[in-house]
Amino acid sequence: MTFTDKLNRAWTRQQSLLMVGLDPDERRLPAELSGRADAVSAFCRGIVDATAPYVCGFKPQIAYFAALKAEDQLLDICRYIHSRYPELPIVLDAKRGDIGATATQYAREAFERYAADAVTVNPYMGRDSVQPYLEYGDKGVIILCRTSNPGGADLQDLRLENGTPLYLHVADQVARHWNTNGQCALVVGATVPDEIAQVRARIGDMPLLIPGIGAQGGDIAATVHAGRTPDGTGMMINSSRAVLYAGTGADWAKAAAAAAQQARDAIRAALEV
Amino acid sequence: MTFTDKLNRAWTRQQSLLMVGLDPDERRLPAELSGRADAVSAFCRGIVDATAPYVCGFKPQIAYFAALKAEDQLLDICRYIHSRYPELPIVLDAKRGDIGATATQYAREAFERYAADAVTVNPYMGRDSVQPYLEYGDKGVIILCRTSNPGGADLQDLRLENGTPLYLHVADQVARHWNTNGQCALVVGATVPDEIAQVRARIGDMPLLIPGIGAQGGDIAATVHAGRTPDGTGMMINSSRAVLYAGTGADWAKAAAAAAQQARDAIRAALEV
Repeated sequence: MTFTDKLNRAWTRQQSLLMVGLDPDERRLPAELSGRADAVSAFCRGIVDATAPYVCGFKPQIAYFAALKAEDQLLDICRYIHSRYPELPIVLDAKRGDIGATATQYAREAFERYAADAVTVNPYMGRDSVQPYLEYGDKGVIILCRTSNPGGADLQDLRLENGTPLYLHVADQVARHWNTNGQCALVVGATVPDEIAQVRARIGDMPLLIPGIGAQGGDIAATVHAGRTPDGTGMMINSSRAVLYAGTGADWAKAAAAAAQQARDAIRAALEV
Repeated sequence: MTFTDKLNRAWTRQQSLLMVGLDPDERRLPAELSGRADAVSAFCRGIVDATAPYVCGFKPQIAYFAALKAEDQLLDICRYIHSRYPELPIVLDAKRGDIGATATQYAREAFERYAADAVTVNPYMGRDSVQPYLEYGDKGVIILCRTSNPGGADLQDLRLENGTPLYLHVADQVARHWNTNGQCALVVGATVPDEIAQVRARIGDMPLLIPGIGAQGGDIAATVHAGRTPDGTGMMINSSRAVLYAGTGADWAKAAAAAAQQARDAIRAALEV
């Protein structure tokens, strides 16, 4: 099954557009796990089990594992998700971008080592830097377009000679020329709903990965209205910190479940307006 | 000592602007190392020892290690270089780019876990995505500007409203606003010497990391003329595959030394014209 099929089925079966990001910050892990060598993967397993009923997939952020020398724990959690929740896609958030020979190695890292269903990549180095990922025809390739951080405007909002902002040029290029196999998606931040609408207007039903609700302050209703497709899907709306660290005590898993359920419900409610 | 100081001293002491990239491709490792669990680090140690007399630094490419689950061997080779050749800087080629909280984790990976002297980063997500690296005041932050691959033109050569191509806008932003601490450098490919000259004209003496000679076909003389500073330095001219895989038999280390010496000499000769 391709990433796109898996994502479509997850949207339908789970009736959820919420994705939970796995960003295990060692300073914020539950006290009961402290000192355990597998604290990171134990925390992630707990979050996955608690939130799985409410999500359309999981998005581990590789930087958090790399900083902790915890590649083995990243592999563990990827295997755990595939084995316990085979219907839920894994998006490896890595934002890689490099020349073809090197991109081939990064694609191996994401798709073979970690068996991710999709990976995030950076478009700055152009089409040939994305090609090695596209060659895994069943995998998803999710390209940065307009990011959720304040500095996202620095380059991405620059207007080109013809008046088009760079991020829309990226959206056009991906939709017209890079997505020949129907496996691409775009990252657009929930902090910029007007830009989400601009992108949606140009890319048909291509999926959007939308970070920025929760800790980053993006508005769920505005995001949903801007990014939805006619059938009420088309988005992986990601929340990381607001779910992971919803509870600070022994109830951390329960609190994460409640936060995920609440976010899923807020998204559903916005779809009905 | 800061990265910039270390690099300046290496240029002077070594009389070399050549950087050797460590891209250990498992399919191309010497036969005598095959089957060894430490084949990657043994190969890199051999390359480092063979080429150290001819270089101003080393540039390990993290993707090659990550694809092979060889983070321990990357750490080994970084420690080996620091211990045996403490005067030679290590540039970790990672091309990271993410929001601040995540960039903080990537900065830890590069500067704490691997103790790199500098790291390459992607500017697409803007100034705040680079800030966490800049906060390591003694470290180098090397920002992609105009890359050596064919697709480098796709986004980087786009003209903005005022007629400036995007890559020159990046060069201007870094020179004027991001490099407040004198720790930045830019990546510009040897395959585009006209663009090197354009960048050099706008950034004063800021160092350039220039990949693309050797396997990618960049011209050494044109590169040197375009990128040099008035004192005949200012460049880390990188060669990876043409040095690493210069010999295919038992003479691999000797062949790598000869290829490095030849590249260093070609750069020197071009400086004298």
